Amino acid sequence: MTTSDLHLLFHPRSVAVVGASANIDSAGYDYTAALPKFGFTGAVYPINPRGGEIAGFPAYASLLDVPGDVDLVISCIPSGAVLNLIEQCGKKGVSFLHLFTAQFSETGDAAAAALERQVEAAAKTVGVRILGPNGLGLYHPAAGLSFRLDLPRAAGNVAVLSQSGNNAVEVVVRGAARGLKFGKVTNYGNGMDVTPAELLRYLAEDPETAVIGAYVEGVPDGRAFFEGLQQAAARKPVIIYKAGRTVAGAKSAASHTAALAGSHAVWSAAIAQAGAIEARTLEQLIDLLVAASLMPKPVGRSVAAAGGGGGRSVQSADACEEYGLIVAPMPDTVREQIRAKAPQVAGWVGNPVDQSILAGSGFSSNGILELMLADETYEIGIANVGEDWFFGRPEADDRLRHACNRLAAVVAKSPKPVAVVLGATETQEQWERTLVDSIRDDFVAKGVAVFPTVERAAYVLSKLAP
Amino acid sequence: MTTSDLHLLFHPRSVAVVGASANIDSAGYDYTAALPKFGFTGAVYPINPRGGEIAGFPAYASLLDVPGDVDLVISCIPSGAVLNLIEQCGKKGVSFLHLFTAQFSETGDAAAAALERQVEAAAKTVGVRILGPNGLGLYHPAAGLSFRLDLPRAAGNVAVLSQSGNNAVEVVVRGAARGLKFGKVTNYGNGMDVTPAELLRYLAEDPETAVIGAYVEGVPDGRAFFEGLQQAAARKPVIIYKAGRTVAGAKSAASHTAALAGSHAVWSAAIAQAGAIEARTLEQLIDLLVAASLMPKPVGRSVAAAGGGGGRSVQSADACEEYGLIVAPMPDTVREQIRAKAPQVAGWVGNPVDQSILAGSGFSSNGILELMLADETYEIGIANVGEDWFFGRPEADDRLRHACNRLAAVVAKSPKPVAVVLGATETQEQWERTLVDSIRDDFVAKGVAVFPTVERAAYVLSKLAP
Repeated sequence: MTTSDLHLLFHPRSVAVVGASANIDSAGYDYTAALPKFGFTGAVYPINPRGGEIAGFPAYASLLDVPGDVDLVISCIPSGAVLNLIEQCGKKGVSFLHLFTAQFSETGDAAAAALERQVEAAAKTVGVRILGPNGLGLYHPAAGLSFRLDLPRAAGNVAVLSQSGNNAVEVVVRGAARGLKFGKVTNYGNGMDVTPAELLRYLAEDPETAVIGAYVEGVPDGRAFFEGLQQAAARKPVIIYKAGRTVAGAKSAASHTAALAGSHAVWSAAIAQAGAIEARTLEQLIDLLVAASLMPKPVGRSVAAAGGGGGRSVQSADACEEYGLIVAPMPDTVREQIRAKAPQVAGWVGNPVDQSILAGSGFSSNGILELMLADETYEIGIANVGEDWFFGRPEADDRLRHACNRLAAVVAKSPKPVAVVLGATETQEQWERTLVDSIRDDFVAKGVAVFPTVERAAYVLSKLAP
Repeated sequence: MTTSDLHLLFHPRSVAVVGASANIDSAGYDYTAALPKFGFTGAVYPINPRGGEIAGFPAYASLLDVPGDVDLVISCIPSGAVLNLIEQCGKKGVSFLHLFTAQFSETGDAAAAALERQVEAAAKTVGVRILGPNGLGLYHPAAGLSFRLDLPRAAGNVAVLSQSGNNAVEVVVRGAARGLKFGKVTNYGNGMDVTPAELLRYLAEDPETAVIGAYVEGVPDGRAFFEGLQQAAARKPVIIYKAGRTVAGAKSAASHTAALAGSHAVWSAAIAQAGAIEARTLEQLIDLLVAASLMPKPVGRSVAAAGGGGGRSVQSADACEEYGLIVAPMPDTVREQIRAKAPQVAGWVGNPVDQSILAGSGFSSNGILELMLADETYEIGIANVGEDWFFGRPEADDRLRHACNRLAAVVAKSPKPVAVVLGATETQEQWERTLVDSIRDDFVAKGVAVFPTVERAAYVLSKLAP
């Protein structure tokens, strides 16, 4: 198998949507309408026995009626009609068939599982490769493909493979708000033919892909998966969230996609051995993608932490040390620079830097963080915004923005990774919520990695540090 | 010591603010202006040598000029002026002096620490009790007291004691957005005289207080603290977040409040032995307060989980089982009720309930959750809203609200604790953010406990379950 095997899947020159529909509350509409919306430049063929127009394209009664070649067929028809469709795909010389169609082995029903095996055999016979079944398929904005109409059109280099459709969506929706821009996102569902192993091998060699995230419950062929993982992790950061770790989770995974979830200890060890990074929640998967995608890789574990009050300083120190970062004391070189400008706090200020003792000193925690990041003692920065303090002050909006602009400039200037900690919007007042969202958007627009808690920031830095 | 000892601290009949100021960007203004804003009904005396009017009250040049009795003095003056103030407090027969004033032992400076000891001795001599120094003091909306102008005026029964001012603020600001209503919130700072131990003993007996949360870095007298903790935990849920657990954290804690942070293993064991619940982050402290305050106490560990797609179901099962909850299979009693209405999914649906397989069945995951909660198999519920799915559908706003209203009704009907999982607002579109905030507000207004991830929901339920 070569890396070009999946090229047409991710870069089809023409797409037919079988089961396309003019009903805007249907997948058959979404797949069709997404193509022009995401700038797909090839031919689009909605297929619907009733003909008519769907999302602005004339519909064909059958795939066989389509005038041109078709690289990718997306199937939204019931499972019982799939064997017939495969036969048509063979006749048309279709390269890839994405089966959004579900109700196969994942139901746990013997007849449905048998149908899946028939589908697999028929596809092999006619030479069409299958993505799915029971998966949303592709979100690849650079190529004009999307499984939802509401996802960002901006293209990037973060690839995701996910067994679960909703989790793929969640990584994109929540990750985009944190600054991730996506390349090839694949919800492979049951992974019957195009497996996660093959996707990993392809993404390993794919020049568009810089970072890979994966949500897997189980895999049909563990050895192939770990070979793919090793190949990818040798070339770029790969983060794996393996779910179905527990008995109940595995049972649920089995009903979800009929893949064996496997023993977790073996998985953890194998992920580490392959050189990949393990996430244990979807939140961690997104956090790690944000860190790997937006920050320079840490070259060591010595962290300069700053911002927030005394409580946050203690919390920051605990989080860093518990996750294995080193909270090195403020070096004399930096302390003397502080003393030159603010002798009254020079003996008192430490690492982490407590913003609350700096009032009237002429220094902010951002200013001290800048000095620390310029010193060879530190290899990583963590900056607490401490927005709750601002909420209680007059002109909170202006002051918070001013402090955050200054912080963003410190981050931009430093070649070292700096994580910014800005809380979630669970605040009382609507203006506070809008303000926090807007500040986060500003950071994100400047390419800054933002985390809602200092523990999450420290965790990802500890996972990426050598 | 009796429980009435601190009564006048929390229910002063008159308050003088020494160092009151007309500058709206000063603590001396905030403490004065907060009194009328929060409905304080007693006498208010701003003290400022320049006289004039502050926040609508005539200012007095000295505490000794105040015409009436003063129960509580709030000090915003520099540390060097405190000994003189204590002498005046003695002359006026003041009961409590809250020293917002800082720059004592927490600086690590020997002269400042010596001044703190002098302050302690002087206060003993004249018979005035001291809260602080280096603390924001009191937020007790039922009595009209607040250390910030922007906190909620609604009064409740959640008490908080916190060594850190910013952390006290964060618990209130973030907790209120999650539905917490606060009783006696105390930022005791250096805890020189009124200690966390005494506060715990007082809150143990306080009829207004139903739940207690505490942020501590270290305590001056461990034995007294754990006696207070035991006394409180015997009567009501007490959640302790002990920071300064690591070497770096303890060092930072020492500079923060000059209290010895102590060995964490000893702390953990002692918290458990006292019957209190340990939180390891501020987020967990707030989550546990939300759970203890808003939900009935779980009587067992068997959890019915529902909602979200297949991925979320697997994730939910993992989270529950890893935290020690029991994901019991769907009992036949419930399965037969499902079969009566939706035979096509009855054999397939499991616990957790995968919403994505229910389309067209006549059941939603909320409907199935309702049946499960009515069954004796389950003692706890977890409901995933799965809002990201809705974002991609037409009429997302109406449909999401409809589903959440239905869910809120299911929660209200059940005598069992049900945690609702609704994600944070880190989404792409402003309308999605506003919608999530508004849905959370609706749940909160109905008294529903909402958690941003299923892992956080499972964690708190496991900590509160027997």
